[in-house]
Amino acid sequence: MQKPSLPKGTRDFGPVQMARRNYILETIKDTFKLFGYNQIETPAMENLRTLTGKYGDEGDQLLFKILNSGDFLKDVTMNDLSTGYQNTLKKVSEKGLRYDLTVPFARYVVMNRNELTFPFKRFQIQPVWRADRPQKGRYREFYQCDADVVGTDSLVCEAEIILMIRRVFEKLNLTDYSIKLNNRKILTGIAESIGEAGNEGPLCVAIDKLDKIGWEKVQEELIGRGFGLSSIEKLSPLVNLKADQDEKLAFLKNFLGSSETGLQGVKELEDAFTILESMGEDLSHVELDIMLARGLSYYTGAIFEVKVNHVSIGSVSGGGRYDNLTGGFGLPGVSGVGFSFGVDRLYDVLEELELFPAESLKSTQILLTHFDDKGFRYALGLLSKLRAVGIQAEIYPDLTKVKKQLEYATKKGIPFVGICGDQEIENSVIALKNLESGVQESFSLDELIIKLK
Amino acid sequence: MQKPSLPKGTRDFGPVQMARRNYILETIKDTFKLFGYNQIETPAMENLRTLTGKYGDEGDQLLFKILNSGDFLKDVTMNDLSTGYQNTLKKVSEKGLRYDLTVPFARYVVMNRNELTFPFKRFQIQPVWRADRPQKGRYREFYQCDADVVGTDSLVCEAEIILMIRRVFEKLNLTDYSIKLNNRKILTGIAESIGEAGNEGPLCVAIDKLDKIGWEKVQEELIGRGFGLSSIEKLSPLVNLKADQDEKLAFLKNFLGSSETGLQGVKELEDAFTILESMGEDLSHVELDIMLARGLSYYTGAIFEVKVNHVSIGSVSGGGRYDNLTGGFGLPGVSGVGFSFGVDRLYDVLEELELFPAESLKSTQILLTHFDDKGFRYALGLLSKLRAVGIQAEIYPDLTKVKKQLEYATKKGIPFVGICGDQEIENSVIALKNLESGVQESFSLDELIIKLK
Repeated sequence: MQKPSLPKGTRDFGPVQMARRNYILETIKDTFKLFGYNQIETPAMENLRTLTGKYGDEGDQLLFKILNSGDFLKDVTMNDLSTGYQNTLKKVSEKGLRYDLTVPFARYVVMNRNELTFPFKRFQIQPVWRADRPQKGRYREFYQCDADVVGTDSLVCEAEIILMIRRVFEKLNLTDYSIKLNNRKILTGIAESIGEAGNEGPLCVAIDKLDKIGWEKVQEELIGRGFGLSSIEKLSPLVNLKADQDEKLAFLKNFLGSSETGLQGVKELEDAFTILESMGEDLSHVELDIMLARGLSYYTGAIFEVKVNHVSIGSVSGGGRYDNLTGGFGLPGVSGVGFSFGVDRLYDVLEELELFPAESLKSTQILLTHFDDKGFRYALGLLSKLRAVGIQAEIYPDLTKVKKQLEYATKKGIPFVGICGDQEIENSVIALKNLESGVQESFSLDELIIKLK
Repeated sequence: MQKPSLPKGTRDFGPVQMARRNYILETIKDTFKLFGYNQIETPAMENLRTLTGKYGDEGDQLLFKILNSGDFLKDVTMNDLSTGYQNTLKKVSEKGLRYDLTVPFARYVVMNRNELTFPFKRFQIQPVWRADRPQKGRYREFYQCDADVVGTDSLVCEAEIILMIRRVFEKLNLTDYSIKLNNRKILTGIAESIGEAGNEGPLCVAIDKLDKIGWEKVQEELIGRGFGLSSIEKLSPLVNLKADQDEKLAFLKNFLGSSETGLQGVKELEDAFTILESMGEDLSHVELDIMLARGLSYYTGAIFEVKVNHVSIGSVSGGGRYDNLTGGFGLPGVSGVGFSFGVDRLYDVLEELELFPAESLKSTQILLTHFDDKGFRYALGLLSKLRAVGIQAEIYPDLTKVKKQLEYATKKGIPFVGICGDQEIENSVIALKNLESGVQESFSLDELIIKLK
């Protein structure tokens, strides 16, 4: 008999992890709903033609593919087999597991475009699967937690994303973090201004690594990608710019003077800030980061990234505006803006900073314990009455030593036990013991209910 | 460009369906928690050696298998290919999607047996996948919603399952339903008493179909399975038994007189009823059904099935006691009892009976509308204040005709719009319009908050 095991890169979530994850997810969901986002779900499996070609060649390699049912070899020819596995793949698999929530969302919008109310604000919290090499903090199954609004160019959406991020962090008691903000149009403008018009793509890819590899290496990479030395020199003052928000904006306007697109990017940022001001909100935690690029090529406007300071974990949230979500499915012109929370990373941050509140683990409030059959019956009589008023209550289901019953309560994190002995039965009370303090007091049922509610 | 589509047998859940599903799931979750069950989650993918052999040959066929990453053909030989797809399958796939929540739970218990607190009460709500032929009401991806307690033989668990089912149904306003109850030991005893000792397996399989195909056909099937005519004749009075609970129990005791196992089954039922009585609970909705068999072979004690009366949908909940959950993973002696709710079926029942409350769809409470930039700024100023007190509020994000804004609110089911025109700005009020009644009244912000809270 083989010992059972989990597939590489996957995890179980036990009661404690689930309670903590739910604490994070409920906070995020409440916030999305407060801002008018509605939840949707899409299937785990998508047709491979929906998924392939959307994530680049590397992404296609990382898709989990599902074997066709039954005799999956029936359409495979000797020729397919002899020309490498790619040709065979097409014949043996037509479905894959979703790789992110964005492509399924785009597919959903296209398929339901006549029924949806635009602007359509949706959130979606589901696992995704990637056949990545498993490593610390990287899993083959993990949850994504996305909110997008499509069908409007309004910068109110950008302002509201900042507010949603701030609300989630406030509720999670996270105080020391930065919402880094930039705009792809500014990066386009920078490429123009340094004499590399049209090369914002490779520019983004290179400066995206600035944090990880430093300016020296980024310069090498830019040279490798064909950037001229004089272009790189012109970029240098931006990389090293130390200034406050207003100074940065002023510097940028000057730097981008000749680029209409670049100035439009600056204006979009300023307009979003003005909207925040109209809402009576300040710019706390917001940090204009001219070197923020984000790798994904489909962003066309604002881009976001959130970093918690003084922890070892990378960005915990990010997103941006795109102007062509559904083009790949034949529906052009659907623009929008979206962002997502990295739930696994938020979990690790809260754990590292010891910010999970004890209440987040609270489940059963009281365990009724007993010494004998008489006490057991007495406890059974109380049990339904406690639950009827919404108190999460359990009885230890077997007749056994009280020590074992107390151990059960302690291990399960139940704060109170209600002892049902002969004396309690005689006086129609319950001896309530606080397992943390050790204090024990007798209460009538009504008093007990008030005490526990 | 191909029009995007969904894989056969899968579904998207849009905002309305999600809100309704969440209404059902939250009701179930609250109930599980009230009774001390903790949530866990397991990965979508399991190793195939964990899954295969647990669901019979047919089940193995219905498992979705995941193709190994990269060159999946690399270990496949010509000999594998020429001997049919089964040998090739072993080389190209080592993972599958979970088929139910029971086998992953058993695996979880075995892998974590040293850390878990027994009796371990867990619930789990996750999708499962089966490569069934898609048909009305049957999907290839659907949610299961299981609660199990393992590590105790206490009949308190059976009593509590009845109470949990009743609570969920009460909260969902479902009143006309039956919780059918039987015990596998009674069926074993019946087999003994009719002279077919040891044949309770085929007996269960046959009488499980009584509802669908009728007694005539069941008799034919029993004959086909080698049951003697005299055995079948002895079974007949049980099939046709019309009696109340007490009479049924008395009849059974007499019928099973010579079968120790059968009488033990009757005693277990009676003990569970006594526990309900000790809890101050009656037997409403509980119906002893001697012919309830349930197909799954691993049940060894109580079995349950819940049917809503006067609807076209089959059973919406079911379960039972087993004495060897984890034997297949080399850990014998883990007994327990579990049950599950069929979420898709409950959805259909509530829809058929029009029992979804309007509140279950409530999302955004108010949309702030505007005529021009001045009104837009004014509305922005109100928005954060409404959200700060927990009111789900939106602003229409673009400057556009009020008609379009009202359409958005109506389509999204938002009950109120807050109109921000010149007059409202001048008087520092908001004109609140109830979109259902058409009534419009002006309020200050403070009044509005009271009105909406």
